[in-house]
Amino acid sequence: MCRMSDQTPEPSGRLLVSGCDVLRVPPEGECEILPAHDIVVVDGAIEDVRPAGDPAAVPGADVVDGRGLLAVPGLVNAHTHSPMVLMRGAAEDVTVEGWFNDRVWPMESNLTPDDVRAGALLACAEMIRSGVTTFADHYFFAERIADAVAETGLRADIAPTYFSSGGAAALEGTVKFAEAWHGGAGGRVTVSLGPHAPYTVHDDDLRTLAGHARRLGLRMHIHAAENLEQTRAGLERRGITPIRMLHETGVLEAGALIAHGCGIVEEDLPLLAEYAATTAVACCPKVYLKHALSPLTPVRELLDAGVTVAVGTDGAAGHNTLDVWEALRLLALTQKQAVGDATWMTVSDTLRLAMRGGARALGLHDRIGALEPGMRADIVLVDQSGPHCRPLHDPRAALVYSTRASDVRTVVVDGRVLMRDGRLLTVDEPALLAEAEARVARVLDTSHGRAVQHYDP
Amino acid sequence: MCRMSDQTPEPSGRLLVSGCDVLRVPPEGECEILPAHDIVVVDGAIEDVRPAGDPAAVPGADVVDGRGLLAVPGLVNAHTHSPMVLMRGAAEDVTVEGWFNDRVWPMESNLTPDDVRAGALLACAEMIRSGVTTFADHYFFAERIADAVAETGLRADIAPTYFSSGGAAALEGTVKFAEAWHGGAGGRVTVSLGPHAPYTVHDDDLRTLAGHARRLGLRMHIHAAENLEQTRAGLERRGITPIRMLHETGVLEAGALIAHGCGIVEEDLPLLAEYAATTAVACCPKVYLKHALSPLTPVRELLDAGVTVAVGTDGAAGHNTLDVWEALRLLALTQKQAVGDATWMTVSDTLRLAMRGGARALGLHDRIGALEPGMRADIVLVDQSGPHCRPLHDPRAALVYSTRASDVRTVVVDGRVLMRDGRLLTVDEPALLAEAEARVARVLDTSHGRAVQHYDP
Repeated sequence: MCRMSDQTPEPSGRLLVSGCDVLRVPPEGECEILPAHDIVVVDGAIEDVRPAGDPAAVPGADVVDGRGLLAVPGLVNAHTHSPMVLMRGAAEDVTVEGWFNDRVWPMESNLTPDDVRAGALLACAEMIRSGVTTFADHYFFAERIADAVAETGLRADIAPTYFSSGGAAALEGTVKFAEAWHGGAGGRVTVSLGPHAPYTVHDDDLRTLAGHARRLGLRMHIHAAENLEQTRAGLERRGITPIRMLHETGVLEAGALIAHGCGIVEEDLPLLAEYAATTAVACCPKVYLKHALSPLTPVRELLDAGVTVAVGTDGAAGHNTLDVWEALRLLALTQKQAVGDATWMTVSDTLRLAMRGGARALGLHDRIGALEPGMRADIVLVDQSGPHCRPLHDPRAALVYSTRASDVRTVVVDGRVLMRDGRLLTVDEPALLAEAEARVARVLDTSHGRAVQHYDP
Repeated sequence: MCRMSDQTPEPSGRLLVSGCDVLRVPPEGECEILPAHDIVVVDGAIEDVRPAGDPAAVPGADVVDGRGLLAVPGLVNAHTHSPMVLMRGAAEDVTVEGWFNDRVWPMESNLTPDDVRAGALLACAEMIRSGVTTFADHYFFAERIADAVAETGLRADIAPTYFSSGGAAALEGTVKFAEAWHGGAGGRVTVSLGPHAPYTVHDDDLRTLAGHARRLGLRMHIHAAENLEQTRAGLERRGITPIRMLHETGVLEAGALIAHGCGIVEEDLPLLAEYAATTAVACCPKVYLKHALSPLTPVRELLDAGVTVAVGTDGAAGHNTLDVWEALRLLALTQKQAVGDATWMTVSDTLRLAMRGGARALGLHDRIGALEPGMRADIVLVDQSGPHCRPLHDPRAALVYSTRASDVRTVVVDGRVLMRDGRLLTVDEPALLAEAEARVARVLDTSHGRAVQHYDP
């Protein structure tokens, strides 16, 4: 195994990111660039963001030289299944049904806890390299994902995937995981309850889990109205939309992160608006295009209803990467086209959706999503000096439309440096790559004919 | 200026790219990976692609160690305006009309020949870094672009942009440029005639240019049916579609690379099919999404009609990068969604469209687009060892859905190494970046109220 440390890392005492430009993402209006600023971090939190001064003014600080770099809030991947990196590229050019029934759910029946751990570690390495500091995960063997997060220093909200086919033991396991890990890893791990979807989890189980969520003060993370066909199927079979099922089972009341929502229809909007303060929808546009879905998540209507929208990658078996730059760019591009308005989903609105929206979607807006005093220090330094960003008129536009994951140089989470000038500090990358490769043939073998579920929403 | 050599570089005598995996893109069917092969290059052409052997078997060769890397045919950017990198990020969140009339055409009225040269050099640097070895350019001051291509070692088909407002002198200049540069830079530069569009060039001028093209054995490169509104406007104002205008003026007969074609309608297809052997359409999906266009280029219908389709970036004032990886990925994604078929535009078909289609779109399919004996040696070595590509089940899927421009390590054009393990060999990158930045404020100043054209198709 490639575990480098068995201890939850302590945030360092003092950190000074010196002389960087800083992206300011206000709650409304245009984003701004604060030129040549220092970010002072104490005990994992941002103490000050101020014009650059003498580094000696912060005695004893670990100094990260940010000159020539742009500091942005760490990206949030608002919906993923991190261990699915093991299936990257193994389910191409298939329908949604074929993707679930012929590829992914058969492959997932092979997974062991150690596979999940190896996949999660690889995913963490990819996300750190890409400037993703927080992710909302939804998967099996959630303890192993939590271990990977604790070890690598990332921040995550982890929902253990629950199918009703798992029965009472699985449901109890979900609740036990939540009790054990919510607030774990020095506060970097939070837990949501994760019924898979209204079409794989019975109403009774949804009610029970919603009750646990309210009791424990947790949010819920669930796939719902993933496409219009699911909404139509819900209306035909049960006379209500998947969103209304979430309402009737208490999921919306508990506070929900809804994955995809491409099938959210007009009649769902008043219902979502009622719970707007605690409801969010994660939009993962690359997988919608790849699966030939239309319509896409109705982002404009959701935002108009006051519902939070954030951006995610979904798992790498569909998205192929965990690259949130790619995802946020595609969100802007596809939403402009979907709405037929090139002046909409502006550069500033896209950055706000990805950063502040991502934080709020996970219920973490009091901690992350902006580089401001009092926030946890999740800071990404981006290098926009490459020819693909130059000349650099507008660093904000470059973030949305030119910047690549490979432009990320340094990543700080909770005040701890996880990558420094391209070097991963908490991950033994060659070891974990080798370990992931060694597991692949077994994970991809579907000759047994088993599957974790059958897709028939 | 950052000119490093006043001589057109000679292809080296012998080059051996040793031990790489090789992407084979057949005219039909699945792409394949040939593991651990040598590519032998003599006088700029590929002499052999064979299982890896002893490098000493090619005496006197410059050896590029390709072990652990994947060799792919150099990418083709089938439609761009390379010097527009100077306007990168300077026209965001605007309508098509606003983009032309308030931003780009006013800015372009500022351009000097030296600006164009600086922009083209920066574009060449970006494209070499991205693994783009050939581009179809369409711009003003074409001589300066040709100079940049000759100097940096890239391959390009250059069309000098012509508006009828330029008058007879401009038209003559176009023809003179073609006579001077077609086949120049050791064959790396070819010329197409470049009337801007049916809505900015009179029929008489289109006829005259088509006549010159036939006389000189050149192709034509023109914007047409860029969106459905242009097609509707053509039908309303003149009773015919833009594609039929190209037919009636002899442009299709001369052989045309049509940029965009999102407004190609059903009645155009038989006409295009008639000229299928010499007609191509360049699809640039990022700019269509960004400008909220719908429908997109009807790629399936064009391919069914036998018309070549290739992928391009358009200029960086819309696309923000010249990244053909990004463009080909978006082509696959958007076409799956547009057609409503996730099983279409497969990984292999996407690679074939980008590589063989790109070569054919520029009339260069006898020279480039595949790594086969007899082809010119335009070779890109890609590193798929990063965590975002791993585990690596399927390098072909990784090329389309995971690989980034920054994964390109080494680039060979016409047998000459232009980038070696990330180091540019024909470009003084810091100097040209500084020069581009120094020109920007003047280029972006639109306070004068001038413009090169007014958009009213």
